[in-house]
Amino acid sequence: MIRATRGGVCAAGGFFCGSVACGIKDPEESRDDTALLISQTPCTSAATFTTNLVKAAPVQVSMEHLKLGNIRAVILNSGNANACTGPQGLADARAMAAAAAARVGLTLEQFLVCSTGRIGIPLPISRIETGVATIRLSRRAGLKCAQAIMTSDTFPKEVSFAVETESGAFRIGGMAKGAGMINPNMATMLCVLTTDAAIPQPALRVALRTSVDNSFNRITVDGDMSTNDTVILLANGASGTAPPLAQFQEALDTAARALARMIVKDGEGVSRLVEVEVQGAASAGDARRAAEAVANSALVKCAWAGGDPNWGRIMCALGYSGARMIEEKTNIWYGDLPIVQQGVLASTPWAKLKAVAANEEFRVKIDLSIGEFSHTVWTTDLTEEYVRFNLGE
Amino acid sequence: MIRATRGGVCAAGGFFCGSVACGIKDPEESRDDTALLISQTPCTSAATFTTNLVKAAPVQVSMEHLKLGNIRAVILNSGNANACTGPQGLADARAMAAAAAARVGLTLEQFLVCSTGRIGIPLPISRIETGVATIRLSRRAGLKCAQAIMTSDTFPKEVSFAVETESGAFRIGGMAKGAGMINPNMATMLCVLTTDAAIPQPALRVALRTSVDNSFNRITVDGDMSTNDTVILLANGASGTAPPLAQFQEALDTAARALARMIVKDGEGVSRLVEVEVQGAASAGDARRAAEAVANSALVKCAWAGGDPNWGRIMCALGYSGARMIEEKTNIWYGDLPIVQQGVLASTPWAKLKAVAANEEFRVKIDLSIGEFSHTVWTTDLTEEYVRFNLGE
Repeated sequence: MIRATRGGVCAAGGFFCGSVACGIKDPEESRDDTALLISQTPCTSAATFTTNLVKAAPVQVSMEHLKLGNIRAVILNSGNANACTGPQGLADARAMAAAAAARVGLTLEQFLVCSTGRIGIPLPISRIETGVATIRLSRRAGLKCAQAIMTSDTFPKEVSFAVETESGAFRIGGMAKGAGMINPNMATMLCVLTTDAAIPQPALRVALRTSVDNSFNRITVDGDMSTNDTVILLANGASGTAPPLAQFQEALDTAARALARMIVKDGEGVSRLVEVEVQGAASAGDARRAAEAVANSALVKCAWAGGDPNWGRIMCALGYSGARMIEEKTNIWYGDLPIVQQGVLASTPWAKLKAVAANEEFRVKIDLSIGEFSHTVWTTDLTEEYVRFNLGE
Repeated sequence: MIRATRGGVCAAGGFFCGSVACGIKDPEESRDDTALLISQTPCTSAATFTTNLVKAAPVQVSMEHLKLGNIRAVILNSGNANACTGPQGLADARAMAAAAAARVGLTLEQFLVCSTGRIGIPLPISRIETGVATIRLSRRAGLKCAQAIMTSDTFPKEVSFAVETESGAFRIGGMAKGAGMINPNMATMLCVLTTDAAIPQPALRVALRTSVDNSFNRITVDGDMSTNDTVILLANGASGTAPPLAQFQEALDTAARALARMIVKDGEGVSRLVEVEVQGAASAGDARRAAEAVANSALVKCAWAGGDPNWGRIMCALGYSGARMIEEKTNIWYGDLPIVQQGVLASTPWAKLKAVAANEEFRVKIDLSIGEFSHTVWTTDLTEEYVRFNLGE
């Protein structure tokens, strides 16, 4: 049984966290912009990183440290991505981990490092070192940490669940930040998940990979993919429970999906959340390609921004998706209402379809009717606010 | 020698055209929305069509007719795409060709058919039949025809060139419509090119394919690809000149590129035209993938809309493009000014870079410095006007 509880990234036993204002983006800024999380005791760890070939310095450093296999803690900052910053960026990411390690009595290799913010600007490392030296840790700072890692996010994102299994109880919690540049295979998206279940290292890695494929890799806002994406999972066994792996997977999926939905919902300038479900595809790859083509089509997303239950642009996107499809076999629904039957406009009254597309959240279901494979992605509309937000400078 | 002349799609000898208002989108509308073009004498013909699996009825009918090998004429309409219209759509496209054929004394199989406009609405075929029966043809109606096929285009697009070769002179001309849904591999984009050079059928086909790859397949506005794209080339030999193929290719490339640039320039709500040139790629495919990822990135295009000489988002797009690249080897220029050298920000004063990005047209050059391959695409910014324009309904 899984039930919501409190505490966010420190909901699970044995985790402590804290945040501080380092003035990373602006020395005058008093908002907390740096967060530190540790497990009181040794833990197993897993992480997935952006597949972008341009990897930010903290991603490169985290990948090195993860391989050493002795992770206990995470240091995160907002306001600066420390990406495209060359050798200085790598030195700064290590210095940031070293400062955090000194504060809590660990080694720098026990830290994963996450940064998010603007690309290409050197990290103000001395301000970070000064700030980190004063961080205070507690069991109750989960929300403050979720706030500290926000960039253009409009609300903090955290989840906490208490899980009961035949083998005993455990907790799982997490925090994330998103907004803009969100795409399957991750995007300026950071997520830290913690659990006090006891899960061996290899199983933890498989569980995280599976959950990420079913959550963060299925969301898209603008089709761009960032240099900094990181999802981290730490498991310290503090509950004394070694749950059946299937039940742990279910709890992890629940936490990851909840955070992924929050990220889409909070996409820059977004006004609608749309679930695009493709079924009846000839292969798993076809199902994914079809769903992603619709979910990333600028024209489809503009239509949704206008509350238009558009179907011609969806047919068009399916046609160029690369997925096998036959126009005359394609069926589409808005919510439960058919809009396309066998490739042409269905008889559903238009006003009813418009009422569905006017909602803040709705589902578009597409049946290609030529196979057995399905895939779902969560996407957003494309609004004038999105463009205004991303004009740069 | 190639020099600009007049006459558009009827600049070449032996071609006649005319347009008429059929009230396709709205019976009250008096703007011409239908155009007819014929070659007075037999001609060779070639055409390329959308690769979208959802092909509009006129595309399907044109593909059938092209195979029969006896094309002499084209009938085109704006205001309705006749796409996703099922068996009735096919019947309507054939009826449209039949009406045009009756008017000029040809058979319906001698016609190619082009439609552009909204998807999924039945063609008002009886209004079209009535209108087409009254079309008057002349040598001087090129501009009127270019206007008749406009949809959200803000200006008519036509070119005309007189070419002198060692084998004699010939002319080549054409018209096109674009705006929105423009993507490599074509988009709601129609183009008819005509020449009075004598070119054998197989050579004409190769020449058109080559030109399309170097022009229309290198432009992008929103990454969507339409159901109706068609490029047609008719060659009737009326000049008596059978030019060397290389010189014909050069003239055809000139005409196709000029029309392609006009289409990008007139993208819906577009304020800037950007040439993205990638060089130093490890393969031709890598060069194309890298250029297209940058040219289609929503975040990059939003930055350009704001006049921001952004480079971090460009690095990011290169990193996820699928092309091989090494961050530390990547160089980027705005115009002739370096902005990224070996993966990090160059020392060019920011104000100078901003001045380049403030232009209505500018070039971004990217050198991956790992190979010998290059590729260029023409793209646009992504503006609030684009979104407003495409809100639907």
